[in-house]
Amino acid sequence: MSKKWLEKQIKGLLLDITGVLYESGCDTAIAGSVDAIKRLRQNGIPFRFCTNETQRTTDSLVSKLRRFGYELDKSEVIAPAPAVRHMLIKQNLRPYLLIYPELMPEFADIDQSNANCVVVGDAAQHFTYDAVNKAFQLLLSMKDPLLISMGKGKYYKEGNELVLDLGAYTAALEYATDNKAVIMGKPAKEYYMTAIDSMNLKPEDVVMIGDDINSDVGGAQQMDMRGLLVRTGKYRPSDENHTTVKPDAIVNNLADAVNQILTHRAIANNSDS
Amino acid sequence: MSKKWLEKQIKGLLLDITGVLYESGCDTAIAGSVDAIKRLRQNGIPFRFCTNETQRTTDSLVSKLRRFGYELDKSEVIAPAPAVRHMLIKQNLRPYLLIYPELMPEFADIDQSNANCVVVGDAAQHFTYDAVNKAFQLLLSMKDPLLISMGKGKYYKEGNELVLDLGAYTAALEYATDNKAVIMGKPAKEYYMTAIDSMNLKPEDVVMIGDDINSDVGGAQQMDMRGLLVRTGKYRPSDENHTTVKPDAIVNNLADAVNQILTHRAIANNSDS
Repeated sequence: MSKKWLEKQIKGLLLDITGVLYESGCDTAIAGSVDAIKRLRQNGIPFRFCTNETQRTTDSLVSKLRRFGYELDKSEVIAPAPAVRHMLIKQNLRPYLLIYPELMPEFADIDQSNANCVVVGDAAQHFTYDAVNKAFQLLLSMKDPLLISMGKGKYYKEGNELVLDLGAYTAALEYATDNKAVIMGKPAKEYYMTAIDSMNLKPEDVVMIGDDINSDVGGAQQMDMRGLLVRTGKYRPSDENHTTVKPDAIVNNLADAVNQILTHRAIANNSDS
Repeated sequence: MSKKWLEKQIKGLLLDITGVLYESGCDTAIAGSVDAIKRLRQNGIPFRFCTNETQRTTDSLVSKLRRFGYELDKSEVIAPAPAVRHMLIKQNLRPYLLIYPELMPEFADIDQSNANCVVVGDAAQHFTYDAVNKAFQLLLSMKDPLLISMGKGKYYKEGNELVLDLGAYTAALEYATDNKAVIMGKPAKEYYMTAIDSMNLKPEDVVMIGDDINSDVGGAQQMDMRGLLVRTGKYRPSDENHTTVKPDAIVNNLADAVNQILTHRAIANNSDS
């Protein structure tokens, strides 16, 4: 595979969490990933964790990663729920929350009576017909229906299985109500920009590393980041022949990507001196 | 409203059932509809009942309509399930059935082991996350995923409420699997043609009467039938200003449409003689 992605300077990284730092359903880090994060810090390469995880609060996610051996600060995590929370407060919105129960604390102090918008997270088993139908009916009753979704992921890995993600239910509600969702998560450009801005960088300086060929790799490339696909998480061999998305590189895992970046940097620094 | 739709000869009718013959959730016929059907027969105007009802077998649907006072034969009803059944047998397909339990008898003798296709009906409360996820996983595991859906309706009326229809779940599975469903129901052209062919007519000779602005009216117009919207069933006042679909006429109910057709025919016959 071409090393072209290394030739232009890499000033920062965006790192997906699930499938890159740990496998969903397995309670350990992916081999080499804890060390890879340490090496990025040692070498002064800035990065942000850019996740579409919406089954738990950011606090809970950070605690989980620390249990796996990661050293990180909550401020380094860009997750959809705080972004949605910010939007709800700013626009004085009262949501009907079609989300996973463990995420509810993130919205505990937000008025949810007499809903004037619908918020979709990865509700998983809680995507019952009655809950989805209620979201549909509320949208239908609104003069200007507002559907906010914490991503458009098609599926993710849970244990050894690929399972349906929130994007499918977002698409269902969009179809039934003739309405486009506002996406507050990957692959939305505004969402990626929040992460990139927080490092004071430009998209073309940044490499996104993830296991989702669409939201991570395709989403990054659509806004002029480089997009790397890892062969961990929900990666499937067929992703390597995806009809529309061609990753800038496919790496075995995060450690592989970080190795290549640091090796290339060392060689470049040597030839500079 | 223009009477232009009456000017070209009407050689036959397609009639939606739910919302035209009876209101879903109410156990009586819509006022005037039983008599309207009788008058069509008396006047020798051929028609077919063209429904997307997939919560019960055709036998059960015919029995229900007879209880409401309708005289009809099973052969006059064009419903998705028998069409899907025919396709499954002809193509030797083994379905995973994401359908309402009351419809299962229609497929009782079809091998459902080791599924090589997914069939979606209006499963309503049985659209659990686990059932939809299983359909998703099966499609993902197939070399050539085959998703068959008994329509693409967005919503229908149940009692006094509009509720989410199978089209939303079809859209969800299409999105998650990057695959287009084969639609065996309105508004699929092949499906409408089955009904039109059974009367030995051409689309331009036929008027479709229904309460679904998209599948009934829009679907009919897309294949050069005339499409009439009734103000019963799931009709909403906002349908009269639909952004893309403009019905050839909007009538109060089936009786209103039949009155207009028979009156116009009587006048035309008188002026002929």
